[in-house]
Amino acid sequence: MPRYALTIEYNGEDFAGWQIQQNAPSIQQAIATAITKMTGEVTHVQGAGRTDAGVHAWGQVAHFDLSRDWLPHRLAEGLNYHLRPHPIAILAAHPVAGEFHARFSAVMRHYVYRLVIRRAPMVLAAQRAWALDEFPEIAAMQQAADFLIGKHDFSTFRAKICQAKSPIKTLTRLHIEAVMPRDLSPAGDVIEITASAPSFLHTQVRSLVGSLVEVGRGKWSPHDMADALAARDRARCGPVAPPYGLYLARVDYSPGLTAATGWP
Amino acid sequence: MPRYALTIEYNGEDFAGWQIQQNAPSIQQAIATAITKMTGEVTHVQGAGRTDAGVHAWGQVAHFDLSRDWLPHRLAEGLNYHLRPHPIAILAAHPVAGEFHARFSAVMRHYVYRLVIRRAPMVLAAQRAWALDEFPEIAAMQQAADFLIGKHDFSTFRAKICQAKSPIKTLTRLHIEAVMPRDLSPAGDVIEITASAPSFLHTQVRSLVGSLVEVGRGKWSPHDMADALAARDRARCGPVAPPYGLYLARVDYSPGLTAATGWP
Repeated sequence: MPRYALTIEYNGEDFAGWQIQQNAPSIQQAIATAITKMTGEVTHVQGAGRTDAGVHAWGQVAHFDLSRDWLPHRLAEGLNYHLRPHPIAILAAHPVAGEFHARFSAVMRHYVYRLVIRRAPMVLAAQRAWALDEFPEIAAMQQAADFLIGKHDFSTFRAKICQAKSPIKTLTRLHIEAVMPRDLSPAGDVIEITASAPSFLHTQVRSLVGSLVEVGRGKWSPHDMADALAARDRARCGPVAPPYGLYLARVDYSPGLTAATGWP
Repeated sequence: MPRYALTIEYNGEDFAGWQIQQNAPSIQQAIATAITKMTGEVTHVQGAGRTDAGVHAWGQVAHFDLSRDWLPHRLAEGLNYHLRPHPIAILAAHPVAGEFHARFSAVMRHYVYRLVIRRAPMVLAAQRAWALDEFPEIAAMQQAADFLIGKHDFSTFRAKICQAKSPIKTLTRLHIEAVMPRDLSPAGDVIEITASAPSFLHTQVRSLVGSLVEVGRGKWSPHDMADALAARDRARCGPVAPPYGLYLARVDYSPGLTAATGWP
């Protein structure tokens, strides 16, 4: 059966998350329904990452199988038509090999978390970033972040409901950067925190960001972050950052799986 | 009576425009109502520019008089409280001299128009930019824009309902720039068109942008813009650009009027 992968953007604010749930709207369900409406086929839609309620994406990846071949751009256009009025867009569709798996073939996941510094309520960027009253100490945040990079037991930064077998993960990148406030919120500086890893624990990025903001506000020293990590104790985590600042930005696959498919 | 000026951000998509209208929601009315709720006073709210339905702002300015003094930050915070849940934020409040007039004292107005290049439906930036299928010829657009800069009869680029006495305006700046797509729409390049002038005719910016896009698409040559301007004929205007890509970005006042007030 032909297998297709999709690159997906969504506004997570009106969804209970990526994953199909009873009696709650999910991105996975909306896409599965659009596929059925378009093709008449019922198929499982496998995502690369299960984003939580309120979390956005501009680089989620999902795969599914169909019984017949479709032109990729027709598939993307047709799904976008059937997805309306959901705030979900198929940015691209790609035919992939039968061994491609959106979740298990992924070699790196990249999340971006957005902070906006402003006291006024968020308007143009409402539900798109976490607003902080004052500009945090970015250098201290990066110093704290550097303690987290590498292979560690991240029990402190893992939700209690996390189902991963092991709390040990390798954090490849955790970078804090002040960016030009041009697009998101011209009235307020913007800080982006980029987190990259082969895989993450449940709520790990928001747990890391919430703790980094404690450092940025001067409530924690950078070394408190190293201590919190070493404690391997959920009670030592800072307040979890709200979901609406988080974006699943990109998922990487090995070139061998994607080279022939026009994958970006 | 103490006079106050406000710097205002709003999402225009749910409003019939800045100006108070019967039976339609307006930003001016929402702010006037919030002032009355907070202070108990009924006052006229005078804006710098009357943005149309769907047009946004992150730098609208308005002034009004109250019978007693307020601390500026208390005024801003209180108005933001009473403005909820409207997508309007008071970014700052300033006490200004009695001769300050948001509309007549303005010496320069700056608008930004945002284009996003993408085929997929807009999701994270829905109602925040105009989506074009293909990347336009920016150099040709700038060449066409250069014909428009300066003092001209802008009858071609003026809505029929425009009430200005004269169609002659001085366009100070009309600049087309590709910007990093970081915030607004990572999945799609962004082009910003900035238009600056002491004052504009009704729908002038959207008329100019719509015509510039005709040049960018190759339907008009840059010189067609000069011809359209010289024709002084509304029928020669390109399709008017949609309102949701337009932002009132900043209004400038003479330093003599604002220097003592902490104006940004």
